[in-house]
Amino acid sequence: MTRIEDLETPVPVVDLDRVERNLRRMQDYCDRHGLQLRPHIKTHKIPAFAQRQVALGACGITCQKLGEAEVMADGGLDDILISYPLVGEAKALRLAALARRVRMRVAVDNSLALATVARAAAAAGREIGLLVEFDSGYRRTGVGSVDEALALGMAARDAGLRFDGLMTYPSAAASAEFVAAARPRFAAAGLTLAVVSGGGTPSAWHAHEIAGLTEYRVGTYIYHDRATVAAGVATLEECALAVHATVVSRPAADRAIIDAGSKTLSSDRVAPEAGAGYGLLLDYPDAVIERLNEEHGVIDLSGSARRPELGERVRVLPNHVCVVSNLHDRVVVTRGGVVEGCWPVAARGRST
Amino acid sequence: MTRIEDLETPVPVVDLDRVERNLRRMQDYCDRHGLQLRPHIKTHKIPAFAQRQVALGACGITCQKLGEAEVMADGGLDDILISYPLVGEAKALRLAALARRVRMRVAVDNSLALATVARAAAAAGREIGLLVEFDSGYRRTGVGSVDEALALGMAARDAGLRFDGLMTYPSAAASAEFVAAARPRFAAAGLTLAVVSGGGTPSAWHAHEIAGLTEYRVGTYIYHDRATVAAGVATLEECALAVHATVVSRPAADRAIIDAGSKTLSSDRVAPEAGAGYGLLLDYPDAVIERLNEEHGVIDLSGSARRPELGERVRVLPNHVCVVSNLHDRVVVTRGGVVEGCWPVAARGRST
Repeated sequence: MTRIEDLETPVPVVDLDRVERNLRRMQDYCDRHGLQLRPHIKTHKIPAFAQRQVALGACGITCQKLGEAEVMADGGLDDILISYPLVGEAKALRLAALARRVRMRVAVDNSLALATVARAAAAAGREIGLLVEFDSGYRRTGVGSVDEALALGMAARDAGLRFDGLMTYPSAAASAEFVAAARPRFAAAGLTLAVVSGGGTPSAWHAHEIAGLTEYRVGTYIYHDRATVAAGVATLEECALAVHATVVSRPAADRAIIDAGSKTLSSDRVAPEAGAGYGLLLDYPDAVIERLNEEHGVIDLSGSARRPELGERVRVLPNHVCVVSNLHDRVVVTRGGVVEGCWPVAARGRST
Repeated sequence: MTRIEDLETPVPVVDLDRVERNLRRMQDYCDRHGLQLRPHIKTHKIPAFAQRQVALGACGITCQKLGEAEVMADGGLDDILISYPLVGEAKALRLAALARRVRMRVAVDNSLALATVARAAAAAGREIGLLVEFDSGYRRTGVGSVDEALALGMAARDAGLRFDGLMTYPSAAASAEFVAAARPRFAAAGLTLAVVSGGGTPSAWHAHEIAGLTEYRVGTYIYHDRATVAAGVATLEECALAVHATVVSRPAADRAIIDAGSKTLSSDRVAPEAGAGYGLLLDYPDAVIERLNEEHGVIDLSGSARRPELGERVRVLPNHVCVVSNLHDRVVVTRGGVVEGCWPVAARGRST
């Protein structure tokens, strides 16, 4: 097998030992606090990792898009939550096809998305679970009031769907208030909140403090990245994916160019207080990846006493690992520092 | 064939009529000014488009990475410039394999990259052309002085490579000064600057003002995007790729969520004066895509009198189309407003 130092760059390299520890730690945390863990596959997009998450105790998985769920169902996964509003006839038919194969649940925050799920359940002749998404203050998707949530819950029942409960992202203190206010209203309408699903890696270790949650969705925790380290939820030593790159030019004493640009690392930033530039050079933490072109990473070495040489290989911890994973058809996996294989990122680019 | 309005979203849709006009316009410009056009395939990554560029008069193509060149050679393209320093034995062997199939030229700015090309030429038993890259002030790759350029040129000759000339990116007024200073020095050393290759879409219509250029490399001009429109090099009506998306949630009167996030549109920004947000909503230019999550585009409608409805389809002009193209396995192509097919972005993700 190829040695790590012989891999062609740029290449994302995944440390399976760290992955295993990250998966176990989160599962243990959820077990300890009586939370169901429903990992989000958006970060890894690899069925084998989803299988491992379930083997360790996850109750099922979460996908954002139908295309991801299709890949995961093909990979043998069952009990899939689509935590995303699906709209339209084409989506309904694909959801129906999935529901014939595996247990499906979908979160909605509007009547059109609800109608899509109802249409799918009818077309499939199968039960599809429904969660109503509410907004805990993030101002993305999610209804803003218990009234709206309840109206959707009752509409779900009227449409013959299995109403399962509520979902939010990211969960926060406000989530508990919403759930506390919602529970008696739903109960009065004859609807049970069997599931209250929260999520988000940055605040994962505080999930148990949010009263009422039954389930937790996390994605980034499998690999971690510069953002989750900055959020204090992981250490650098827990980060399981690094992009290996090569210094292909050293045009000035204070500048190095690596063969990893925005098509390899993405242009995602972290908050200024979390660090400068487009990723952390693990071996040269004082150097700054100050600029990315598509295939060039421009490194400012002026603040770094040690400086990489032309031809040297460097490791970059991505700012945001989920989008990096999505840029690559394959990741190299290692165990004990030895290359074990090259795995397809099977659900990469499945954005529909 | 599927109607455009029935395509599942999110989806990049390419207008072939506009592509044809963009390709012709640039070729005409170069022809008029006696410049060889060597289009960069980084933007489209599709062999059929590269074939069309050559059919219209391009002298060859430009690729950034070997993986792109391999796909293009598989697609029948010949005369390929790798405008990027290649470093290491693995790259040398791949370059050698390419050189056995098609005419190759490589740009270098350092001795290690030069040695890689020399190794490839020896391994292939074929001639490989060499350009020395110089820096016109962009501070990325490229040597900073005529002395360094000349040393590399002489080293290329000594290594048995075919020295072809100079390359820079992006070309600018400073490029002409460098070339003027370099030409007599190279001539005195018995080296001819047969090729002086400039590049960059934003300043493309000024390429003829840079004395000494023989060749021009441009990529973005095939599709154009919000950045090149802001640079004044194209109009909105010339932009040939738009991402079609669906409004999947309208959680508040002033907020819409589309099913296109950073995994569809990328996180690339444009300069503040070029426009706010992560792409231009062509049908709602006063709305702002203020935030992207991986699969969510969060649109601020507060400044827009007209507002899209739940379930409505919208078109997004990307900020930077090259990275958007790289996120998608396929683009839908249309002509006269009719869907003609769905083309693989064959060189997508070929980052090594």
